[in-house]
Amino acid sequence: MNEHISSAYDRDLEGITTLIMKMGGQVEEAILKAVKSLTDRDTELAEEVREGDKSIDALEIQINDEAARTIALRAPVSKDLRSLLTVLRLAASLERIGDYAKNIAKRTSVLVEMNPVSGSDVALRRMAREVEAMLKDTLDAYVRGDAELAEDVRQRDQEVDQMYNALFREFLTFMMEDPRNITPCMHLHFMAKNIERMGDLTTNMAEQVIYLVTGDMPDEARPKGDKTAYVTDAG
Amino acid sequence: MNEHISSAYDRDLEGITTLIMKMGGQVEEAILKAVKSLTDRDTELAEEVREGDKSIDALEIQINDEAARTIALRAPVSKDLRSLLTVLRLAASLERIGDYAKNIAKRTSVLVEMNPVSGSDVALRRMAREVEAMLKDTLDAYVRGDAELAEDVRQRDQEVDQMYNALFREFLTFMMEDPRNITPCMHLHFMAKNIERMGDLTTNMAEQVIYLVTGDMPDEARPKGDKTAYVTDAG
Repeated sequence: MNEHISSAYDRDLEGITTLIMKMGGQVEEAILKAVKSLTDRDTELAEEVREGDKSIDALEIQINDEAARTIALRAPVSKDLRSLLTVLRLAASLERIGDYAKNIAKRTSVLVEMNPVSGSDVALRRMAREVEAMLKDTLDAYVRGDAELAEDVRQRDQEVDQMYNALFREFLTFMMEDPRNITPCMHLHFMAKNIERMGDLTTNMAEQVIYLVTGDMPDEARPKGDKTAYVTDAG
Repeated sequence: MNEHISSAYDRDLEGITTLIMKMGGQVEEAILKAVKSLTDRDTELAEEVREGDKSIDALEIQINDEAARTIALRAPVSKDLRSLLTVLRLAASLERIGDYAKNIAKRTSVLVEMNPVSGSDVALRRMAREVEAMLKDTLDAYVRGDAELAEDVRQRDQEVDQMYNALFREFLTFMMEDPRNITPCMHLHFMAKNIERMGDLTTNMAEQVIYLVTGDMPDEARPKGDKTAYVTDAG
């Protein structure tokens, strides 16, 4: 492959990376705004998150088109091709995380009509902040080609899972204490599960970054943290 | 592009299509077995689903590798490239549907220890059967290049969403009637949500097939059926 073609590919990839970072920034913002709309009981902010998702979706389509165009024009092989296919996966994960933020914002609009369930939205917000920080580090790891930072993100997912497990048990307890808590707790639980899934997706992204940098998927099986499938009672 | 290269590409694509159909068959089986394990309270069958997910995951990796190899070797452009990128998306969706089936099987192992909640697992099974039928038709539409059949699948997702909405309200009612129903209903609700998500993913796959056949994504916005974000009470 001659110099000219090689650097054309590099320019294309750089352009796509810029789009990924732009998309990632919008998704980070959506996560933070979605939980802020819940804790502040701010339905306008929730509506903003729902509207903003369209821009995130449009960026994914643009990234897909650019990547397909680059593959068709530059016919990249080996590591260059792997980079482009990884970028497509990163964009797909970002789009899904954005969807979860939108879902949280949707439920906010309903929850503000109900009695607050003591302290639970603070816990949700802490969980969301942790996921947002993980996503920020994953995007940094991607741009800098830093596999170590990506590995660090991968480990932190366990903390998010632990927060989720604690919340799941708490919601069960609240529901048993007072039937009026059942409907709001179902919605809050949905939100917690959405944040937990965002953490999983961010961890998948971190694994893709490790693969991109090192050429290997992390072989040690990722520790799975959602233990609620095994909860038989709110002990 | 000369004849020889073109038919090498065709053979590659045919091989990948065979893998997709194999993967799809295993995912269909996982869906049916997962809900059967629930209704029959059969923990061995649930364990079989959890084990079987490894084979589904391995097929996705194989499809990704084959597609990357084909892109690198044959340097396909326009429709041929689009076909391969679509295949990657179909495989990713199948992998996620398989994960949901595995999650359902995990919860079965817990639910068999609890008191059954009247009639709800029959409703879950009906819902899962509908999703399995949609997936079967989507795979048929893919192999036959039948956009009309894929469009039909897309419309049927509303029925699955309606079943899910009805179940969500039913679970809320059960939980309010008797606090002992709260924990099993939380697990059953998770299963219902998993099946609803499988329906969404199958619908995404149907849209990819339409794109593949016609070159256009369906422009009419897909009717969204999960209305539970707006449920304020189990009325």
